[in-house]
Amino acid sequence: MILKSALKQKIDFKTKPLGALGTLEKLAYQIGTIQHTLNPVLKQPTIVVFAADHGIANEGVSAYPPEVTHQMVLNFLNGGAAINVFSNQNNINLIIADAGVNFNFNTTPNLINCKVGFGTKSFLNNKAMTSNELEQCFKYAHQIVEKVNNDGCNIIGFGEMGIGNTSTATMLMSYLCDFPIESCIGRGTGLNDNQLNHKIQILNQAKRFHGHLSDPMEILQTFGGFEVAQMCGAMLAAFEKNMLIMVDGFIASTALLVASKLKADIINNAIFCHQSDEAGHHLLLQHFNATPLIQLNLRVGEGTGCAIAYPIIQSAVNFLNEMASFESAEVSNKEI
Amino acid sequence: MILKSALKQKIDFKTKPLGALGTLEKLAYQIGTIQHTLNPVLKQPTIVVFAADHGIANEGVSAYPPEVTHQMVLNFLNGGAAINVFSNQNNINLIIADAGVNFNFNTTPNLINCKVGFGTKSFLNNKAMTSNELEQCFKYAHQIVEKVNNDGCNIIGFGEMGIGNTSTATMLMSYLCDFPIESCIGRGTGLNDNQLNHKIQILNQAKRFHGHLSDPMEILQTFGGFEVAQMCGAMLAAFEKNMLIMVDGFIASTALLVASKLKADIINNAIFCHQSDEAGHHLLLQHFNATPLIQLNLRVGEGTGCAIAYPIIQSAVNFLNEMASFESAEVSNKEI
Repeated sequence: MILKSALKQKIDFKTKPLGALGTLEKLAYQIGTIQHTLNPVLKQPTIVVFAADHGIANEGVSAYPPEVTHQMVLNFLNGGAAINVFSNQNNINLIIADAGVNFNFNTTPNLINCKVGFGTKSFLNNKAMTSNELEQCFKYAHQIVEKVNNDGCNIIGFGEMGIGNTSTATMLMSYLCDFPIESCIGRGTGLNDNQLNHKIQILNQAKRFHGHLSDPMEILQTFGGFEVAQMCGAMLAAFEKNMLIMVDGFIASTALLVASKLKADIINNAIFCHQSDEAGHHLLLQHFNATPLIQLNLRVGEGTGCAIAYPIIQSAVNFLNEMASFESAEVSNKEI
Repeated sequence: MILKSALKQKIDFKTKPLGALGTLEKLAYQIGTIQHTLNPVLKQPTIVVFAADHGIANEGVSAYPPEVTHQMVLNFLNGGAAINVFSNQNNINLIIADAGVNFNFNTTPNLINCKVGFGTKSFLNNKAMTSNELEQCFKYAHQIVEKVNNDGCNIIGFGEMGIGNTSTATMLMSYLCDFPIESCIGRGTGLNDNQLNHKIQILNQAKRFHGHLSDPMEILQTFGGFEVAQMCGAMLAAFEKNMLIMVDGFIASTALLVASKLKADIINNAIFCHQSDEAGHHLLLQHFNATPLIQLNLRVGEGTGCAIAYPIIQSAVNFLNEMASFESAEVSNKEI
C-alpha cells in the first residue's frame, strides 16, 4: 500500500495538470504496481504468434481458404506480414510458433515447433482436441514463455494466425460469458451477409451438439484451437512470471477469458492494447470492463494491435521515469 | 486519379484481409495522396511548441497562476516536460518558441525568439492584440516553418503553452462555429464547478462586449493569443509547403479552425492526432468530421498528442512500404 500511494504521488507531482495524462497515468500506475517499483522498466518486449488450423474452417465459416494459414506462416518467416513490419518498427522481438498448422514446414531456427497436430477436428460434431492435446498445448506454451522470460523479457504479447479461429473465439465467448452466438460473432476476415448467416447457423448447430458445458478447460478442449490454447497457456505462464501481458484483439481476448476463469488475478497484469473491428470484441471488452489503448478498426490479428500500441505503453513508463516534478522544475502547482 | 487508384490497389493487395488495417489504411492513402507517391516517407518529424501569456488569465479563468507559462518554458528548455519525454522517445525534433511570454528569458539557442509582446491584453474589454501584432505572429510563424522545411522536415506538429489559452480557444470556436460558449468550454487545467461557472460568465461577458464578428482574422486578433495566432500561421505555412500537419488537442484544433476559414483545403493535410479530454474538443472534431488517432483522455497540450500518436502515423507509412503483397508472398487472396 505504501508503494501504491508513493506511485500516485509521483504521478501527481509531475509537471502537468493533475490527471492530465489520462490513460497513461493509469497505465504507469498499473505497471509500477506490478513491478513493485516507482521506476518501472520495459525489457525486451516480445510478441509470440501462434499459428494453427481448424477443422471448423472446412464448414465455410471463413472468407479465406484454410491453406492461407500456412501461407501466412511462410509470410511471417519471410518478414512480409503486418506483424513483421510493426514489430520491426517498434523494436519488438517476434517469435513465430507452429501450434498445429496443417503443413510440413522445413526446419528453420525462426519457427518454433510446438505442433500438436495438423489442425483440430471440426467442433461441429467432435471435440476439437483431446485432453492430452490440450495438456500438450499448455506444456509447449509454458516452455516458450519460460525461455523468453529467462532471456530477459518482462512484457509479452500474443498473436495468432488460423483460418477459422474467429469461430472458435465466438464459441469460447458464448459459453464462458453466457452470451448468444449472435452477440459474439463477427465477419472475421470479411464475410458477406449470407456467409455470416451461415456462420451463425453452423455455430448454433455446434452449440446444440455439445450442449451445456461449464468447465473452462473442457470448453477450450471442445472448441480449440491449438493456437488459442497455447495463447491461453502462455498467458498463464507469463502471469506466473509476473510479466506484463499485452492483449491483442478478439481471439487473444478470448484466450485471456479462458485464462481468467482459471486464474482471476491474471487481469491485473493485462494491458488491453486495441479494440478490434470484430463485432464480438466490443462486448468482450465491456465484460472485462476494459478500455483498450487504441481503437483503429484493426482486424488483422497476428498481435498487430500489441505491436502498434506498444509505444504508448513505453510512453507511460517514460513519463513516470523522465518527467520533472513541480518541485524539481520549480513550477508552481498551487491553484490560484 | 491514377495515383489514387494505384494507392488503393497497393493497400488492398497487401497480405491482410481487405480493409483490415482500418484507420492505418486511410492514413496511408492520405499520406500517399499528399506526397503524390506510392512510397511515402516521413522525414525529420518536428513539433514546434509556441508559448505566450494571456491577459484574460488575470480574470480567474485558469486553475494555475500566469507565471506557470514561463516556468513551463524553462521546464521545456531543461527537458523535463511531457513533450520533451515523448518527443525524445519517438525521435521527434522539438522546437520551443517564445511567441509572447510575460518574462525575459536569457538568450539560448534552444529558444526561438518570436516575441510579439509580454502577453496579450485581456479580451474581456480589449482586443487581445493589434492587427500589426497579428501580422507579426504570421510573419514569425512563416519563418520558423520555412526553416524547418528547408532542413528537410515534411511532417510537423504544433503544441502550445499559455495559461488561459483554453479561454481563447473557446471564444474562437464559439465565434467560428456559431456554438454557445457553454458547448465549447471545458475545465482547462482543472477548474472546479464554481470556477467553471465563473469562466462561462467571463467569456459570455466578453462575447457581449465584442458583439458580432465574422472575419476570421478579426476574430483571431480579438481573442488572441500570440501562440494560437502563430500556430495558425505556421499551419498555413506548412500547408503551402505541402507538409503533413499533425493536429494536437483543443487549442491546436481551434488554430486549425481559423486556418481552415482562410484556406479550406488545409484539412487535406491535417492528421488529427488525439481527442482531448477537454469538453469542447469532441464537438470541434465532429465539426471537422474527424476521428483522431488516439483517445487517451490527455489534456496536457504542448503537442503531446502529436508526439504520442506519431508512431501510429509511422506504422501507416511502413505497412504501405514494407508489407508483402498477396502475389509476392504467394498467399491466396481468393475468397472460397
